[in-house]
Amino acid sequence: MEGTWDEAVRRACRLAERGLGTTSPNPVVGAVLLAPDGQVVGEGWHEQHGGPHAEVMALRDAGERARDATAVVTLEPCRHTGRTGPCTQALIDAGVTRVVVGVADPNPTAGGGAADLRAAGVEVITEPGAAATAAAEHVNRAWLTAVRTGRPHVTLKTASTLDGRVAAADGSSRWITGPDARADVHALRARSDAVLVGGGTLRADDPHLAARGPAVRRQPLRVVLDTGGRIAPDARVLDDSAPTLVVVADDLDAAARERVRSAGAELLALPRDGSGLDLVGLLHALHERGSRAVLVEGGPTLAGAMVARGLVDEVVTYLASALLGAGPSALGPAGITTISEALRLTPFDVTTLGDDVRISARVRRERS
Amino acid sequence: MEGTWDEAVRRACRLAERGLGTTSPNPVVGAVLLAPDGQVVGEGWHEQHGGPHAEVMALRDAGERARDATAVVTLEPCRHTGRTGPCTQALIDAGVTRVVVGVADPNPTAGGGAADLRAAGVEVITEPGAAATAAAEHVNRAWLTAVRTGRPHVTLKTASTLDGRVAAADGSSRWITGPDARADVHALRARSDAVLVGGGTLRADDPHLAARGPAVRRQPLRVVLDTGGRIAPDARVLDDSAPTLVVVADDLDAAARERVRSAGAELLALPRDGSGLDLVGLLHALHERGSRAVLVEGGPTLAGAMVARGLVDEVVTYLASALLGAGPSALGPAGITTISEALRLTPFDVTTLGDDVRISARVRRERS
Repeated sequence: MEGTWDEAVRRACRLAERGLGTTSPNPVVGAVLLAPDGQVVGEGWHEQHGGPHAEVMALRDAGERARDATAVVTLEPCRHTGRTGPCTQALIDAGVTRVVVGVADPNPTAGGGAADLRAAGVEVITEPGAAATAAAEHVNRAWLTAVRTGRPHVTLKTASTLDGRVAAADGSSRWITGPDARADVHALRARSDAVLVGGGTLRADDPHLAARGPAVRRQPLRVVLDTGGRIAPDARVLDDSAPTLVVVADDLDAAARERVRSAGAELLALPRDGSGLDLVGLLHALHERGSRAVLVEGGPTLAGAMVARGLVDEVVTYLASALLGAGPSALGPAGITTISEALRLTPFDVTTLGDDVRISARVRRERS
Repeated sequence: MEGTWDEAVRRACRLAERGLGTTSPNPVVGAVLLAPDGQVVGEGWHEQHGGPHAEVMALRDAGERARDATAVVTLEPCRHTGRTGPCTQALIDAGVTRVVVGVADPNPTAGGGAADLRAAGVEVITEPGAAATAAAEHVNRAWLTAVRTGRPHVTLKTASTLDGRVAAADGSSRWITGPDARADVHALRARSDAVLVGGGTLRADDPHLAARGPAVRRQPLRVVLDTGGRIAPDARVLDDSAPTLVVVADDLDAAARERVRSAGAELLALPRDGSGLDLVGLLHALHERGSRAVLVEGGPTLAGAMVARGLVDEVVTYLASALLGAGPSALGPAGITTISEALRLTPFDVTTLGDDVRISARVRRERS
């Protein structure tokens, strides 16, 4: 019945969430084991790439109480024998009699877990209801987008005043948003595999891009576009607090490349595309390196180019309760000239952070 | 004790709110009568200018049960004999033994009600707690601002995309926000005494500015700035669905004035101020006419000028979940050049309206 599994799937999603930022290129997964009377007897989640899967953690948590239990998992259990052995077999061996799947695994190398379970006599519910499926899709959207499109999920982050300014007329921007919003950006970075800024922002703001804060367990890859290889040797992004990738044009001469490398950063050379670099190629290169969740932090030129090429999946906007009346916008030209071409979004979360407001929205797109 | 009166004052505030848009130049007032056991025995609110006051309505509602009751009112009861007789005397005559006042009446011609009540042996609580006072201040902010400053309370309304655009690059803007947000704007107009737009918006958008919808009980005064008296005779704002005031420069010749008048609108001539008109003079003229709540609907030039002159008290921003990457901003130059000069606001309400988000915020200002 619609709604029966909502609570358990949401609980599993909250467990899965804990893995955001540390599981790529794996998905995040959460699992809850319910005794026949509905009591929760085990919980688990996939903590990090290479570590045990969520189902195995939940089975360990439940011990003997897993027998005759229902396993509620955010993602279809894997059937392949990777580093940790197939989860399907572990569930069968533990005596689980029913498995509720939040969302099917679209990955051909892992999918088919449901069929294996059924063959072993386990009841499998793959359509737990629209709300449950939406929640399971949502928590794993980065990984699912990557499986479906072959490139990472891209979140565009902006921070502006209520009138859409990211800086005042003289360029000053510290601080537009307050401490709560700034701390939230660090958490957003920590949940991302890579954080990306354009060359203008690199030179104007000298950003650091690392994630700070007590909850940070892994640093994202810092990625800076630097078409001409002009990064300053003392740029903050080149310190050793996180890995850094400097992206240059592939027509850059050897001396310029060597200058970037000697500053201590890894270098990626990409073809030029119009006035910038090949952003599709960049995303595929990041995907190859295992990135599933990419956060674009600006500036306006890069943000506009990402939107223009249809590469943005999600937008997180921090709105400071302030007005400026002049100054640059968060988003530069994106190839949109009239209102009917506007990139339309569906908001899924609106949260107040001190005097700022965070709006999170997904890009409306027909899936092909 | 702090918090004791919160619930009753909030209930009275919700009653007071029903009068927004129909009581000016009077305040909105709500009153709740509580029996000694705390039961609500009467409710009333000031419905419209010239009608009975909230206290009288609540006493009528309670009848004999008003004896020994506590009256909780959002605003200090009046002592003056206006159209309806002093409320203080009505409360005394009905046998009310205690009066809780949300906020004191700062108006010298009405204030002193608390003293009269005390002289008659009625217990008066004028400091019901910070939360209760804040709620009573909030519901009556337009009228209180007008009493304290001698000009109406000004709300700046903007509607833009998440990247701060009010229109696309080609000027198209129908529709940036969705039907829920547009209906909300009509409710906002209906709660305002006057709705104001600048000349650029008048000519570019041909706005109608009347309030539409089932809940609309009174139309605001439509005010359009038209420095050069160039309004089109068939402008939508000149129809008969609401009164209209066309504001021109006082150096306009008689023929031009006559042309505006013959289009059916009332005319107000004001001195020029810089590139625009004397906005302080405009607000005082609207105050003279009884307006306490003025809604500024744009465009960017007028909005910027209002901010630059320190005339904005509140901002209501409708944010459409969309990106454009180009196009005009809601707020034009406001004399702010660096981040420390930003007009800082404190948000008091964030509401989702379909796919749009409404942020309401008050301007931070030290009261003199």
